[in-house]
Amino acid sequence: MKKLLNKPADYVDESLDGLCLAHPDIYRRLGEDGRVIARAGGAVNGKVGVVSGGGSGHLPTFTGYVGEGLLDACSVGNVFAGPSVGDCMDAMRAADGGAGVLRLYGNYGGDRMNFDMAGEMLEMEGMETTTVLAADDIASATPEERQKRRGVAGLIYAYKIAGARAEQGGANLRDVTETARKAVEATATIGVALTSCIVPEAGKPTFSIAEDEMEMGMGIHGEPGIWRGKLKSADDVAGEMLERLLADTRIGSGERVSVLVNSLGATPLEELYILYRHVAAELSAKGIEIVRPLVGRYATSMEMAGASVSLLRLDSELEALLSAPARCPFWSN
Amino acid sequence: MKKLLNKPADYVDESLDGLCLAHPDIYRRLGEDGRVIARAGGAVNGKVGVVSGGGSGHLPTFTGYVGEGLLDACSVGNVFAGPSVGDCMDAMRAADGGAGVLRLYGNYGGDRMNFDMAGEMLEMEGMETTTVLAADDIASATPEERQKRRGVAGLIYAYKIAGARAEQGGANLRDVTETARKAVEATATIGVALTSCIVPEAGKPTFSIAEDEMEMGMGIHGEPGIWRGKLKSADDVAGEMLERLLADTRIGSGERVSVLVNSLGATPLEELYILYRHVAAELSAKGIEIVRPLVGRYATSMEMAGASVSLLRLDSELEALLSAPARCPFWSN
Repeated sequence: MKKLLNKPADYVDESLDGLCLAHPDIYRRLGEDGRVIARAGGAVNGKVGVVSGGGSGHLPTFTGYVGEGLLDACSVGNVFAGPSVGDCMDAMRAADGGAGVLRLYGNYGGDRMNFDMAGEMLEMEGMETTTVLAADDIASATPEERQKRRGVAGLIYAYKIAGARAEQGGANLRDVTETARKAVEATATIGVALTSCIVPEAGKPTFSIAEDEMEMGMGIHGEPGIWRGKLKSADDVAGEMLERLLADTRIGSGERVSVLVNSLGATPLEELYILYRHVAAELSAKGIEIVRPLVGRYATSMEMAGASVSLLRLDSELEALLSAPARCPFWSN
Repeated sequence: MKKLLNKPADYVDESLDGLCLAHPDIYRRLGEDGRVIARAGGAVNGKVGVVSGGGSGHLPTFTGYVGEGLLDACSVGNVFAGPSVGDCMDAMRAADGGAGVLRLYGNYGGDRMNFDMAGEMLEMEGMETTTVLAADDIASATPEERQKRRGVAGLIYAYKIAGARAEQGGANLRDVTETARKAVEATATIGVALTSCIVPEAGKPTFSIAEDEMEMGMGIHGEPGIWRGKLKSADDVAGEMLERLLADTRIGSGERVSVLVNSLGATPLEELYILYRHVAAELSAKGIEIVRPLVGRYATSMEMAGASVSLLRLDSELEALLSAPARCPFWSN
C-alpha cells in the first residue's frame, strides 16, 4: 500500500487535523469524536444552515467546501463509510442559525439512514429541517429512476448554489431547499475509472482492473459502471461521456452550461485539459455555450486514476449563484 | 500506459489548448508553434516582465502561474524537456512592457542554455534582461554548492514574490531581480517519491521502484535521491524531511516561515494534510511560526505518487509580497 500515512485507523482524524491546522480561519473540528467540520466563525445568526456529510477519501469533497458562501458544516465518516447519527446531529447544530437547516448530500443508503434519523431527532427538539439528495450520476440508474442515482462530483454545484442562496438576505429554508433541488436536477455527471484506489484500513485495491482496461460509468467507490473494455483515446472517452450526458439531459443548442472536468485523484491536470478541449469543441459545435468551466480535482477517490465530466444546465438564477462570492481553499471566485 | 490522451506527440499541445479554452480571460497561446503561454491581456506597459519556462508535465507549474501578480509569460517544452530558444525569445517579447524582463526558472542545464541564448539575442536587439535561477532542492547538492541545486516546487514562491514585486509602481528590473533572488535564497525543498510517472512519448515508467519502497530526495523528473528504502510512516517521512530542511537552512526559534506541502500528483490531499499535521506540530515545538501554509498540488510530475515539503523563510517584505493579490486558477489570494 503506497500511501503516506501513520496507522490506517488514524487516517481520517489526522487528515482532518491537518486541514484545520492549515486553514484555522476557515475550518474548526467539533463533535464528540472530532468528526464534524464547521465554519471557524460558527453558525450565522438568521441564515439558513446548509450541511453535508459523507465518507472520507474524496477531498476536497465534502469537508473542503465548508466556508462562506458554501457549506456551514459537514459530518465526516471513515473512508468510504457514512457519518454517524450523532455527528450528523452535531453538524446540523453547528449550522443552525435559527432559520432552519438543509441537509444536502449524496444519495447513498447509509448516509440517508443516518441523516434522516438525525433530522428527526432534531425536529423533535424544534429545529426546522429539509433534505435534498444529490443524484447526478447518470450511469447509476435510468432517467426514469433518477431518484435511485448516486451522488458524485456534480454535488459541488449544489453546494455552491445552495450556499450562495442561503447567504442572500431574506432567503428562508424553503427558498434554499428549492434552489438546491433545482441545482441538483440541473446537474448530470458520468465518470470513467482507470485504476482502483486503496482504502487504508483494507490495505489493498478495492477492485482489480487490467493494465489496458478502463470502466465507463464506474462510481467513486468502485461501484460497477456501464461497460469495461480496452482503454480508449481521450477524445473517444470524452466524446462518449458527453454524448451520454446530452442524451440524458437533452441539453441542446442555445443553452448555457457550466462544465466540470474532475480528476478522481491520480489523473493529472494535463489530461483533464485534454478532455476539456474535446468537450469544449463538441459543445461549441452543438451551439451550447460554456460558462465558468471548472477543471481540476473537486471530488476524488484518493489516488484513483480516472475522471468525470459534469454538466450544469444554467438559467440566470443558477448562473448568478454560481458566480457569487465564496471563500474556501478549494473554490476561487 | 494508463493515461487519458490521444497521440502521445499531441499531449502537450492539446493540454495547452484546453488550458486556454478553459481560462481565456487569463491565458493565451503565442509563438510559432503555440509553445508560449502569456497573459491574455498582453504585456503591461512600464512593468518589468517576469518570464519562466521549462518542460511540461508539472502542471500547474509552470504555465498555470501566468497571471496578474505572477508571471507574464512562459515558454513550454515537451514533457520533461526544455523549451526551444525561439519560444524563450517569444515569451520574453510577450512579457516586455519596456522596463526589462527577468528570466526566472529552475536550474536545469538545457533550460539554462536556451534561455541564456534567447536572452543574449534579445539584448542585442536592445532589451534589458536578467536571470534568476531557482535552486531549492536541498537533496541535489550540498549547501556549499547551492548553485548546482535543481529547481523544484519552491519555485512557485519565487514566482509569487517576484510577480508581486513587479506589480509595485516604480519597481525596476534591478529591484525585481533582487527580490526574486532573495526569495530563491530563502527557499528550500525536499521531496520523496513513491512511484514513477510515465512520460507519454516513452510509454513506460521513467524508473522502477519496488512495491514497498520509497526514495528520499528524488527529483521531479526521477533524478536520484539520498536514499531508497522501505516505505516509512507519514510522521517519520515528514520528520526526516523537516530535519533536513532545518539543518540546511538553519531556520530556528522565533522565525516565520511559509510551508508548502506539495503532492507530486497521485498522492491525495488526505495524505498531504497528514504530512502537514506533523510539520506544523514540529515547527510549533521549535518556536517557528507558520504563515500562509500551502497544501495541495502546485508542482507535479503528472501521476507520480510522492510529496515535497518546502520552507520559505520570511521577513516583512517577503511576507507582504506573498500575501499580495494574484490572479490565476491555481493561486487564491
